[in-house]
Amino acid sequence: MTKWVYHFGAGAADGSAALRDLLGGKGANLAEMAALGLPVPPGFTITTEVCTHFYANGKTYPADLEAEVEAALTRLGEIAGHAFGETNWPLLVSVRSGARASMPGMMDTVLNLGLNDETVEALAKIARNERFAYDSYRRFIEMYSTVVLGLEHHEFEDALEAYKAARGQTLDTELTAEDWRKVAALFKEIVEKATSRPFPQDARQQLWGAIGAVFSSWMNARAIIYRQLHNIPENWGTAVTVQAMVFGNMDDQSATGVAFTRNPSTGARELYGEFLINAQGEDVVAGIRTPQSITEAARRAGGSERPSMEAALPQIFAEFRAIAQRLETHYRDMQDMEFTVERGRLWMLQTRAGKRTGPAALKIAVDLATEGLISREEAILRIDPLSLDQLLHPTIDPDAKPAILASGLPASPGAAAGEIVFDAAEAEKLAAAGRKVILVRVETSPEDIGGMHAAEGILTTRGGMTSHAAVVARGMGKPCVCGVGAIRVNYEEQSFSVAGRRFSKGDLITIDGSAGRVIAGAVTMRQPELTGEFAVLMGWADKARRMRVRANAETAADTRAARRFGAEGVGLARTEHMFFEGERIVAVREMILADDAAGRRAALAKLLPMQRADFQELFEIMSGLPVTIRLLDPPLHEFLPHSDTEIAEVARAMGADPAKLRQRARELSEFNPMLGFRGVRLAVAFPEIVEMQARAILEAAIAAAAVTGVAATVEIMVPLVFGRPELDFVRAQVAATAAAVTEETGLTPSYKVGTMIELPRACLRAGEIAQTAEFFSFGTNDLTQTALGVSRDDAGAFLGVYSQKGILPADPFVTIDQEGVGELVRLAATRARAERPGIKLGICGEHGGDPASIAFFESVGLDYISCSPFRVPIARLAAAQAALGKTATSTA
Amino acid sequence: MTKWVYHFGAGAADGSAALRDLLGGKGANLAEMAALGLPVPPGFTITTEVCTHFYANGKTYPADLEAEVEAALTRLGEIAGHAFGETNWPLLVSVRSGARASMPGMMDTVLNLGLNDETVEALAKIARNERFAYDSYRRFIEMYSTVVLGLEHHEFEDALEAYKAARGQTLDTELTAEDWRKVAALFKEIVEKATSRPFPQDARQQLWGAIGAVFSSWMNARAIIYRQLHNIPENWGTAVTVQAMVFGNMDDQSATGVAFTRNPSTGARELYGEFLINAQGEDVVAGIRTPQSITEAARRAGGSERPSMEAALPQIFAEFRAIAQRLETHYRDMQDMEFTVERGRLWMLQTRAGKRTGPAALKIAVDLATEGLISREEAILRIDPLSLDQLLHPTIDPDAKPAILASGLPASPGAAAGEIVFDAAEAEKLAAAGRKVILVRVETSPEDIGGMHAAEGILTTRGGMTSHAAVVARGMGKPCVCGVGAIRVNYEEQSFSVAGRRFSKGDLITIDGSAGRVIAGAVTMRQPELTGEFAVLMGWADKARRMRVRANAETAADTRAARRFGAEGVGLARTEHMFFEGERIVAVREMILADDAAGRRAALAKLLPMQRADFQELFEIMSGLPVTIRLLDPPLHEFLPHSDTEIAEVARAMGADPAKLRQRARELSEFNPMLGFRGVRLAVAFPEIVEMQARAILEAAIAAAAVTGVAATVEIMVPLVFGRPELDFVRAQVAATAAAVTEETGLTPSYKVGTMIELPRACLRAGEIAQTAEFFSFGTNDLTQTALGVSRDDAGAFLGVYSQKGILPADPFVTIDQEGVGELVRLAATRARAERPGIKLGICGEHGGDPASIAFFESVGLDYISCSPFRVPIARLAAAQAALGKTATSTA
Repeated sequence: MTKWVYHFGAGAADGSAALRDLLGGKGANLAEMAALGLPVPPGFTITTEVCTHFYANGKTYPADLEAEVEAALTRLGEIAGHAFGETNWPLLVSVRSGARASMPGMMDTVLNLGLNDETVEALAKIARNERFAYDSYRRFIEMYSTVVLGLEHHEFEDALEAYKAARGQTLDTELTAEDWRKVAALFKEIVEKATSRPFPQDARQQLWGAIGAVFSSWMNARAIIYRQLHNIPENWGTAVTVQAMVFGNMDDQSATGVAFTRNPSTGARELYGEFLINAQGEDVVAGIRTPQSITEAARRAGGSERPSMEAALPQIFAEFRAIAQRLETHYRDMQDMEFTVERGRLWMLQTRAGKRTGPAALKIAVDLATEGLISREEAILRIDPLSLDQLLHPTIDPDAKPAILASGLPASPGAAAGEIVFDAAEAEKLAAAGRKVILVRVETSPEDIGGMHAAEGILTTRGGMTSHAAVVARGMGKPCVCGVGAIRVNYEEQSFSVAGRRFSKGDLITIDGSAGRVIAGAVTMRQPELTGEFAVLMGWADKARRMRVRANAETAADTRAARRFGAEGVGLARTEHMFFEGERIVAVREMILADDAAGRRAALAKLLPMQRADFQELFEIMSGLPVTIRLLDPPLHEFLPHSDTEIAEVARAMGADPAKLRQRARELSEFNPMLGFRGVRLAVAFPEIVEMQARAILEAAIAAAAVTGVAATVEIMVPLVFGRPELDFVRAQVAATAAAVTEETGLTPSYKVGTMIELPRACLRAGEIAQTAEFFSFGTNDLTQTALGVSRDDAGAFLGVYSQKGILPADPFVTIDQEGVGELVRLAATRARAERPGIKLGICGEHGGDPASIAFFESVGLDYISCSPFRVPIARLAAAQAALGKTATSTA
Repeated sequence: MTKWVYHFGAGAADGSAALRDLLGGKGANLAEMAALGLPVPPGFTITTEVCTHFYANGKTYPADLEAEVEAALTRLGEIAGHAFGETNWPLLVSVRSGARASMPGMMDTVLNLGLNDETVEALAKIARNERFAYDSYRRFIEMYSTVVLGLEHHEFEDALEAYKAARGQTLDTELTAEDWRKVAALFKEIVEKATSRPFPQDARQQLWGAIGAVFSSWMNARAIIYRQLHNIPENWGTAVTVQAMVFGNMDDQSATGVAFTRNPSTGARELYGEFLINAQGEDVVAGIRTPQSITEAARRAGGSERPSMEAALPQIFAEFRAIAQRLETHYRDMQDMEFTVERGRLWMLQTRAGKRTGPAALKIAVDLATEGLISREEAILRIDPLSLDQLLHPTIDPDAKPAILASGLPASPGAAAGEIVFDAAEAEKLAAAGRKVILVRVETSPEDIGGMHAAEGILTTRGGMTSHAAVVARGMGKPCVCGVGAIRVNYEEQSFSVAGRRFSKGDLITIDGSAGRVIAGAVTMRQPELTGEFAVLMGWADKARRMRVRANAETAADTRAARRFGAEGVGLARTEHMFFEGERIVAVREMILADDAAGRRAALAKLLPMQRADFQELFEIMSGLPVTIRLLDPPLHEFLPHSDTEIAEVARAMGADPAKLRQRARELSEFNPMLGFRGVRLAVAFPEIVEMQARAILEAAIAAAAVTGVAATVEIMVPLVFGRPELDFVRAQVAATAAAVTEETGLTPSYKVGTMIELPRACLRAGEIAQTAEFFSFGTNDLTQTALGVSRDDAGAFLGVYSQKGILPADPFVTIDQEGVGELVRLAATRARAERPGIKLGICGEHGGDPASIAFFESVGLDYISCSPFRVPIARLAAAQAALGKTATSTA
């Protein structure tokens, strides 16, 4: 018989951390902590399998669940010494969600469950605090009613405001026990009016209502969006943990807090967290009261007057510090813990691997390995390669010395600039239109997720380092500044004021998430230093990986950046990018307008010296490393103007007949340019272009060698072939040019000729093509377009729908479609190697910078991956992880 | 040691008909005839291997060729009784080309070789005819000089005209022996002046010059074009046959002629041919003199006054008739023969399988099988399926009773109408621009091939049934009327006059190649009857084939035509074709402009009854046979207007806001529509379209069954899927609609859901897709576009270059690319069958009507092919040939 319910508490547990899939992160870790003998309020977890059953059977439960829950409640009562539903000594519980992966704030929670008109009186007696009891009761009624009964928060908030207004009160703290009792009564009336039945008084009815609500919240809109953003499968489901309540808000010897075993922002090895005396956990997380530091050191660093936990509750602090240390050692990773102190007694409510910034993840992994807690391989596997992106983002140039507008908490590092926007939905809209925005909010809520993802950075005026905005921004790697109290937001006027200035929607600001600063306008940024832990981990990764990492680059700036980021060559230099600048485009257009090969040759002769100079610079920058140069690829109409105005302008500038220009543009225009007259097809039709490009490449190689003293490693790549004859044709052309260059210079530049494999037919004919090609580079962008029949430029119209309806698991232009495109790549590799063992195989599509795709390329045994320069470190780490046999996943 | 030279003559031969590849058609058949003991002038053939050697070695010969030729000349001299080069009794020879496949008129020939200033005198003495000797000499000088020495015909013709003009002569027959001697001397002067050396007098020098010229003519421009048109590989090469001359122009007991063992136009079993008394063979073929009939019957039928060969040379006729019969029985096919009578003695110069019209080929094959000469399977294999196209072309409606402008010879059957054009190059140009033209010439020459191919039909004013125009037109299956003497062409004015009327370039005429008539204007045409031999052969083919043949059709007219042509169902009904008519397009546009699903549903509701009526008609016409209906496929922008004028017009017509219409058109426009928002992607995004179409189909099926009493065989086909989830989505949609229809009507229409396989990824995922799909239809058009990355609409810009440069053997949109697209089809079939044994597999791309592709589909074991209605008979025959294990080839 399937076991649906797992008990924990009193030094024992049915489950353990190993049962994360079944019990969720929270449930598994509570079981683990209980088994370790740590002080955990007793409880039980209903498994994720119940969730699966729930959705598979029209939101009903397994038949035997109720009996198991009853048994667990009985055991809970035995440990607590009083039973659930007992009226004179109430056992209150919390009901929480807990999925395999952390989804903070996405699903529903109900606290203080078990309170009713009778037990609230009992609670008041036991706590010797009537005000606390009725405050708890009215909170419970509001929470239960919104989560389980579907009422809106504002219905309760409005009633409370009206109640206070009628009495001339403004702060909650002014309300007495009697007030709260009246408010609770008011709240019950609201429920009865809305639902046509009284607020449920039966504890078991309350419990099952809450369990159902938590399971249902797995499919709420924000949870769905969160899963999509984080690639969490829907079928994982959530567990539900029911746990005895402890109260951090009973008195001044009560407290609640959250803490990390290391600094989640910097990775520094220091206990790091916040707490509030006489508060419930939600008060810390919600950011409504600004919390106090856990340690004295942090308090001093933050310049706070209010006492740290270390000073205020020294014994509890010592106990907590020891537990934190034990948990980190036990889990071999930085922990994120929640705790409550009830009347001087410490209770651990949760522990989990802590979310951290990219730099912190790096430092923690390197430190843990240096401390001997984990191996270097584990350190490599601990870092989500995509998180390195944060390290590679620009920071504010210290020399810029910008005037600081306001300061707040450095909630998530990195700097960002953009237009001010006050609404998450609008942030999404503007970002979709290509605008860069900074989302400015008093505080953020789970509903804002989409807008936070779309924004360059987030600024809030309230809340601390563990507020919603801070936690989510760190997870996303977005710069974030929190709690900037000096800024006053006026949502209605869509503006904020600070230091006597007014900023409106659309005005530019810069935020520095590392320093917690806000600056007016857009500020000069600086590239990050790639040293310290980054260099250490990269060094370990480079030793662990098998695949080489190259960059897609053709400009001197990009190529230099690529080499600085550790690229081991250029995997794709797009020669056409060199065709667009200044006078070059004029010569290119002359070539296109020429009536015959002689006319084209004359125009190409003008391009030759420019291309040669470009290539020479590339070879010099990448001296000692291979450089793959792709011959002209795009259709020629891309170089021509199209609108009548542009045509007239260009014709005048180049002294050409506008009619002829228009005519040629019309002749060259295509229905499906992606499948048109481009790539090797241009080379076959206009061999003189190959002739010029081959000459430029080979002469540049000779010139670069003369400068550097090292022979250039030249790889000439032919795009868009679908069979060997095309490649033979171009190869012969290149060979003839090489022979001419040798005759003229007396030097024999060495070079290889290879091809992009970017059409399905090329994959099928790979064996034959490999008879001629000395290397392959998979062009997985175009291969995805042709294999799936999806134009990347037009896919927006339906890929979204495909994702929503679950037809495509991931965007195939981001992560390679292993089942389709992947099979073609594998098949091509196999066939090519059968004909030419040891043929060099690489990939230069966008997938070259995607960790999941890189894991696949490792499995195919490609020799190298090539990606954009800023992705090179990501690719190096992902390649190492792939070599260690693990696909990249987040550490969170 | 390789044998380069093969002797024949005097009842013996080194070679035989089996050595066609080595000796060419002519040489092999001369050897065969010689070995059969038929009267063949002795000679020898230099093999095609010498041609291959010639081109592989800079136009030089194998070292031992000269010795072999000398030996063959010696043997020739022994049989003839006098040696080549002997001056007092000259042995003259012809030097002719002869490739594996017949290429009439494409390569060069030299006759009367061996004549010089001495031997011409000897010939005069032996022939007792000085005029004949000098006439032959001047012909030889002109022919040799143009073929071997590269002079132009007009240089000689001009001199001859000047000579005659100076003497007041107009006709060649007025010239005496002395005149011809002077003309020969003039011609020699022309040669000496042009080449700076005297006309060669040495017979061996003449011979090697001619051999070299014939080999060289293999690569002349018109031979290259002919090979491209007929898919003849360049590496086959030509043989050269050197043969003793016999003279049909020695006296009135001499004659020359050509004949077929059956009528090449109708296939009737009757000796059929033409001859000329006292003439050389070229006079018959060139069409300069109008020849006489071979048989009395033909003379009477033609209403000619001039005697037939049967009457004029009765003994020779009897001998020839016996030989013809023997040759047909020996070769088991209709023969095309050339013969010469020299002073009362019959010599056979050539025999080969005769070219014939499509109807004749059909009749001959059926007759030969009925006569027991060949089997039914051989009869099936004898017909080039593409030649059936001629039978399926329209003929002039007899009820039209058009006024006949002029009559000529019915040279190639079928009727055609078009604009008059007088120049072959212009015919090509206009045809390329989509215009239909009739090429009108006094006579045609090999240079006109391209224009003849481009024209709808050909009309000549001179020449007979075996003239160049007639032979080539029959080979091409083009209607042709020859020898319309009443028409006088004026090339300079680009017009012709007939019966007092004047017709200019661009005027419309109709020709009837079956009746030999010319009609002013464009005349009503009629569909052919598909009875007689056609029905017989199709019956045999239907028994022999394994694959079913369906048609791609959606209109009632096309579907009826398809069923008449023997289609066994509809393989592809394109529902979008039904969306364009009248009010439908308005509803379609309303749907596109709708803001939400409700708006789309309202518009679709208007389309439902129309679609249902269409489908019902389809089901009724195809009653008892399967009908595959494809759901909406094209991108929606295809239904919207695009230019501002059109938009304004449409907006006004449908009462819509032009701005909104423009906006929507812009939103929907795509960079690569072929890879865009179409096919199943529309179904996933707008399920209400599927709902409407499924309902229309299922309700139509129920209605049709009520009318016909037979349940419709409904196959619903989903286009452009690349994986199973899309198909699952649509299938569920269809199932839900079917359930609704059942609930409403109480009837359960049976249907199958399948998919087009037209993307490379779909081929790879075929196994998974087959778990849901009940049938596949390969959409090889789009599969070719995606597998090769070639847009069919844009391919014109480079496929021509690819063909010229030998990179692609055939247009992949005409004949399936077996190596690429073919492998995908094969792989998909294998994977699909592994998951769902017996899954029905078909193909509905253009390749379904291409015999070479059909042979491939047979090899994959597809269940059916589907093609356009007019291609159905071609597909039936090609499928039979494929089943018999032979790919389609021409009988010629």
